Amino acid sequence: MSLVVQKYGGTSVQTLAHIENVARRIIRTRKKGIAVVAVVSAMGHETDRLDELAKQLDVSGAHMGREIDVLLSTGEQVTTALLAMTLMKLGCPAKSYTGGQVRILTDAAHTKARISEINTERLLAEIGNDCVPVVAGFQGVDENQNITTLGRGGSDTTAVALAAVLEADECQIYTDVTGVFTTDPRMVESARCLDVLTFEEMLELASLGSRVLHTRAVEFASKYKIPIRVLSSFEDCDGTLITNEEDLAMEQPVISGIAFMRDEAKVTVLGVKDIPGIASKILGPISEANIEVDMIVQNIAADQSTDFTFTVSRQDYAQAMQILNAIALKIGAREVRGDNEIAKLSLVGVGMRSHAGVAAKMFEILSAESINIQMISTSEIKISVVIAEKYLELAVKTLHTGFDLDQTG
Amino acid sequence: MSLVVQKYGGTSVQTLAHIENVARRIIRTRKKGIAVVAVVSAMGHETDRLDELAKQLDVSGAHMGREIDVLLSTGEQVTTALLAMTLMKLGCPAKSYTGGQVRILTDAAHTKARISEINTERLLAEIGNDCVPVVAGFQGVDENQNITTLGRGGSDTTAVALAAVLEADECQIYTDVTGVFTTDPRMVESARCLDVLTFEEMLELASLGSRVLHTRAVEFASKYKIPIRVLSSFEDCDGTLITNEEDLAMEQPVISGIAFMRDEAKVTVLGVKDIPGIASKILGPISEANIEVDMIVQNIAADQSTDFTFTVSRQDYAQAMQILNAIALKIGAREVRGDNEIAKLSLVGVGMRSHAGVAAKMFEILSAESINIQMISTSEIKISVVIAEKYLELAVKTLHTGFDLDQTG
Repeated sequence: MSLVVQKYGGTSVQTLAHIENVARRIIRTRKKGIAVVAVVSAMGHETDRLDELAKQLDVSGAHMGREIDVLLSTGEQVTTALLAMTLMKLGCPAKSYTGGQVRILTDAAHTKARISEINTERLLAEIGNDCVPVVAGFQGVDENQNITTLGRGGSDTTAVALAAVLEADECQIYTDVTGVFTTDPRMVESARCLDVLTFEEMLELASLGSRVLHTRAVEFASKYKIPIRVLSSFEDCDGTLITNEEDLAMEQPVISGIAFMRDEAKVTVLGVKDIPGIASKILGPISEANIEVDMIVQNIAADQSTDFTFTVSRQDYAQAMQILNAIALKIGAREVRGDNEIAKLSLVGVGMRSHAGVAAKMFEILSAESINIQMISTSEIKISVVIAEKYLELAVKTLHTGFDLDQTG
Repeated sequence: MSLVVQKYGGTSVQTLAHIENVARRIIRTRKKGIAVVAVVSAMGHETDRLDELAKQLDVSGAHMGREIDVLLSTGEQVTTALLAMTLMKLGCPAKSYTGGQVRILTDAAHTKARISEINTERLLAEIGNDCVPVVAGFQGVDENQNITTLGRGGSDTTAVALAAVLEADECQIYTDVTGVFTTDPRMVESARCLDVLTFEEMLELASLGSRVLHTRAVEFASKYKIPIRVLSSFEDCDGTLITNEEDLAMEQPVISGIAFMRDEAKVTVLGVKDIPGIASKILGPISEANIEVDMIVQNIAADQSTDFTFTVSRQDYAQAMQILNAIALKIGAREVRGDNEIAKLSLVGVGMRSHAGVAAKMFEILSAESINIQMISTSEIKISVVIAEKYLELAVKTLHTGFDLDQTG
């Protein structure tokens, strides 16, 4: 018999009516002879409500992590009970499981724990009894039975990890979109839902801000070779299958999608002495301030001095400029310049590996629209450029058409 | 070092401000050199909110009990985390515990489980570390780690059970009243807060509808001889100490309090043949319909026939009349009469044992006000009478004064 893990996110379980919809979907799957293990998130804005309680308390610090986890984990627990009851009401045997009951063992890093081991005994027994185990996502327990949570995207990670240890045929992630798109359909009307995607492509898209799947869950799936399918819990569709490159029957298109991030900022330190260790002198204090740096570009030195540019998220821009102005004095740099009206745009696709011309074609398309490229960074399956934010929509639309990503018909 | 278990009910933790108040109270206790184990209920109307979710699902039946417990138990869990964080924020080491983490082992009777065993290891370790364990009331786990809840008054039971196994000096139950009163102060302005009370008296008062403490918790405390103190979390006062009769230094007053229950109804089957088994023929079908019967009176038979009267709660009145009319035909009774405008009133006091005249005095006082007594039932420390509901307030006030229960000064 085949087995799937179905994960339902917060928007899919936000009311009792939504939960009934989920229950019917699980029952339909079972009618096809497929056993189901369900993983659920907290209802709609329940996590926000609990977060807000903690925020109002105005507590912080690592020693609060244990209690934050005790608080947050109740959100998923409520959903498991309600879904299990709804399934039973509709005649389908079901039983709720907290992370601790399964047991999903994690390390003790509260609020961002990592799964170390999953006991499959009880879940396999339930499946054997034709019962649907409804597991609370996002949570586990450490060795001392302390409740832990897995951090952002945690329920996706729970689902993929369960699919791995249960050797499920597929891990289905139900969301409020019909799958992974070639680009954000809110910007580009002709954006297309992709049938398939490789783990690597999904990883690049996820790290570039696609909110469909969390990076950690994709990494996990890739490591254990668990096919993930992203689908909508609101419509019937096949969604997007994310799997190994070698499992894809057809040749992949050169480009699978275009990701972009607004809210970026760029800072440049001009006239830096080109000596070893200078980069760490600049980036060290930035990292100490917990500012995440994305793209980094250093020009080749001409006259023993160089320009050093990197991007940060726009909310960190002011602080980064302040830190750099102080550093510039110390290291004798000429000037610090910043620009917080930029955006990042990336082409992603495994087909790119064998097609050297992708970058050239990309630059040509942008240039034809007189869009200036401010920074470039490439990886094996991705080309990212920084442009002025005002050109972002034009750039995405033109590239989407130029690389044949538009919907046909 | 001395140790107390402090239990805070729903009204005492209904907002974050209330929770901070509770935290400060715990810290004040610790400053006196007394170690504290806290037991908490769900915040204000959180249990109602969760109950409502289950109600909206419209599920029932024993097989849902497991999931109901998973759902309801989240309420207390949220409070434990918030109180532990608040304590830490105020500089007091604290750690939350679910029933399962303690571990409070119960039977598997979901929604009304009974505690069978409590592991004190982790709690004693926390106390040894000068840390306040904040335990979720109302919940436990069965042998298979399934979450269970203890039913109504469950958090009180948790507190008393913990006090017993930890050999605490006292179990303090914090509520929104300053203690146990001689009668309901909302009806009788001169009602007085009692300093002390015996377990037996408290049991009678609790079973007669005093909502301060649940019968089960009192039974538990009585069995393990754990002194309970009922106090207010809103005012500073000594509250009411409930303990063993032999531990009370002074002689107890004859009457400690007057309890009453409105919403009662009385049904009488007239002209029943006085043969063995007739009572069970009448009460059997009533009990099968899950109707609880309180007082039962059967008159001495005169002419081989007898009248059989009992009281039920007013909400069960119509159903009880219907059942009895059917039975009356079968057993050849003459008539069924009912009255749903009655109330029950009880005098409670251990001093009553040695004072034969209490009943006589009670009847005299009522008769002086021309209040007709419809039924009488007595126990060692209690006399209950049924009267017309319209006379209830007059009866309580007159008896309160007549038995010297009024506040002085």
